[in-house]
Amino acid sequence: MRFVKGHGTENDFVIVPDPDGSIDLTPGGVAALCDRRAGLGADGVLRVVPAKLMDPEQDAEWFMDYRNSDGGVAEMCGNGIRVFARYLVATGLAEAGEFGIATRAGVKRVHLGDAGDVTVDMGRPAVLGESWAEVGGRRYHGLNVSLGNPHLACVTDVPVGELDLTRQPGHDHATYPEGVNVELLNIAGDHAVTMRVHERGSGETRSCGTGAVATAVAAARNAGETTGVWAVHVPGGTLTVTLDEETSYLSGPAVLVASGDYPPVL
Amino acid sequence: MRFVKGHGTENDFVIVPDPDGSIDLTPGGVAALCDRRAGLGADGVLRVVPAKLMDPEQDAEWFMDYRNSDGGVAEMCGNGIRVFARYLVATGLAEAGEFGIATRAGVKRVHLGDAGDVTVDMGRPAVLGESWAEVGGRRYHGLNVSLGNPHLACVTDVPVGELDLTRQPGHDHATYPEGVNVELLNIAGDHAVTMRVHERGSGETRSCGTGAVATAVAAARNAGETTGVWAVHVPGGTLTVTLDEETSYLSGPAVLVASGDYPPVL
Repeated sequence: MRFVKGHGTENDFVIVPDPDGSIDLTPGGVAALCDRRAGLGADGVLRVVPAKLMDPEQDAEWFMDYRNSDGGVAEMCGNGIRVFARYLVATGLAEAGEFGIATRAGVKRVHLGDAGDVTVDMGRPAVLGESWAEVGGRRYHGLNVSLGNPHLACVTDVPVGELDLTRQPGHDHATYPEGVNVELLNIAGDHAVTMRVHERGSGETRSCGTGAVATAVAAARNAGETTGVWAVHVPGGTLTVTLDEETSYLSGPAVLVASGDYPPVL
Repeated sequence: MRFVKGHGTENDFVIVPDPDGSIDLTPGGVAALCDRRAGLGADGVLRVVPAKLMDPEQDAEWFMDYRNSDGGVAEMCGNGIRVFARYLVATGLAEAGEFGIATRAGVKRVHLGDAGDVTVDMGRPAVLGESWAEVGGRRYHGLNVSLGNPHLACVTDVPVGELDLTRQPGHDHATYPEGVNVELLNIAGDHAVTMRVHERGSGETRSCGTGAVATAVAAARNAGETTGVWAVHVPGGTLTVTLDEETSYLSGPAVLVASGDYPPVL
């Protein structure tokens, strides 16, 4: 199996090209691939498969088959799709500029040059109410936001750098019966926040694209706004989130690090 | 740059073939390569370079240029040399059986088949006295053992699975002016121990070959013995250490996981 390793603000992925749709990714196989000591190591896997083989209804050439590091299927991944778009352009499978990528959450529009930041239209965040999470024995209240996957974004004065996110935060199972991605954020200046995230199925990660958008929505509401541009500082770098009346955009770096064969070709 | 990723009991390495001795590994470059999110990710790097280019005095064909994940040079690595030997045989650079590998701690003899465990003669452990380490505010007393690199191996009744090894253990700077690798071990049956390790320059790892030997030496002394065969259970698997009057042997699995190019060839 060929692979490319890449990351967006240190949210890292193993990209697996599959032009014939012939690769059967099992949960155990994905978990082994993502194991950081015994495998290649990643937050998730991005299988690159023709959209017509996965969902012919979607008007796009390529489908992003995203799996979390535990092997589970996930709807969407904001940093993953930016790295996926970089891969398509770098390998000549798509031309720089704007194009669509099919996902389990529908077609997503991306925009990029040959280098520089990659932007993805994340769609309109759905604010579904409020809920809570428990981290280190303390309860945090926040906003229940859906970006195709469920988020809880909590504005807090507790410095997020001091939190212990090694364990799964507690959450309201009635609101989130299938689990939730939890963001904790501090206001860090004018239209700027610092965020940490615990991803459902992956644990704490260095960044989370959909989480950054949910974070910007919560920060904007905290500021009495609904639109605007927010800098979201995450452990792995900085993302920019643009909120308008219709949709949201996520921008940031997307880097391809290595390529190769798994298992090895010697 | 070509690479192979491999591991021995989940102590993982990026192997970098360098038949011309032309690759200049800088500390920053090694740290970037070993970064688990922005790089390939590993506990260390093994550059495969002809011994005649590094140290013509050593009677071996290949030299293992080992670097820790922080970029620092290290003398030896017991799991690293087993993975290094697997790589040499798998790529046809050495024949299965017994041969020598040059290192900064001299020539080490290895023994392996085409598959199965890889054994390395680790030399005679030097017991230099006793010392202590502090983990989680508690002081542990143990044996000061050198395997070319410095170790402190502490037999304890505190279950090692419950220890927090995320921080550098405190140690006696007079005994270990250049730092120390710290092992904590529980007796786990007849000639069997369970061990965790904090490696100087790498943090907690899933396994450490020289640490397993130091651990067997401390466990043997604890049992009133100086020779014998010990099973050393580490978080990443099980190693076997054989102590005799003359030397010590470390045996265990060594697996090659992937191969490729860094940066990517697309």
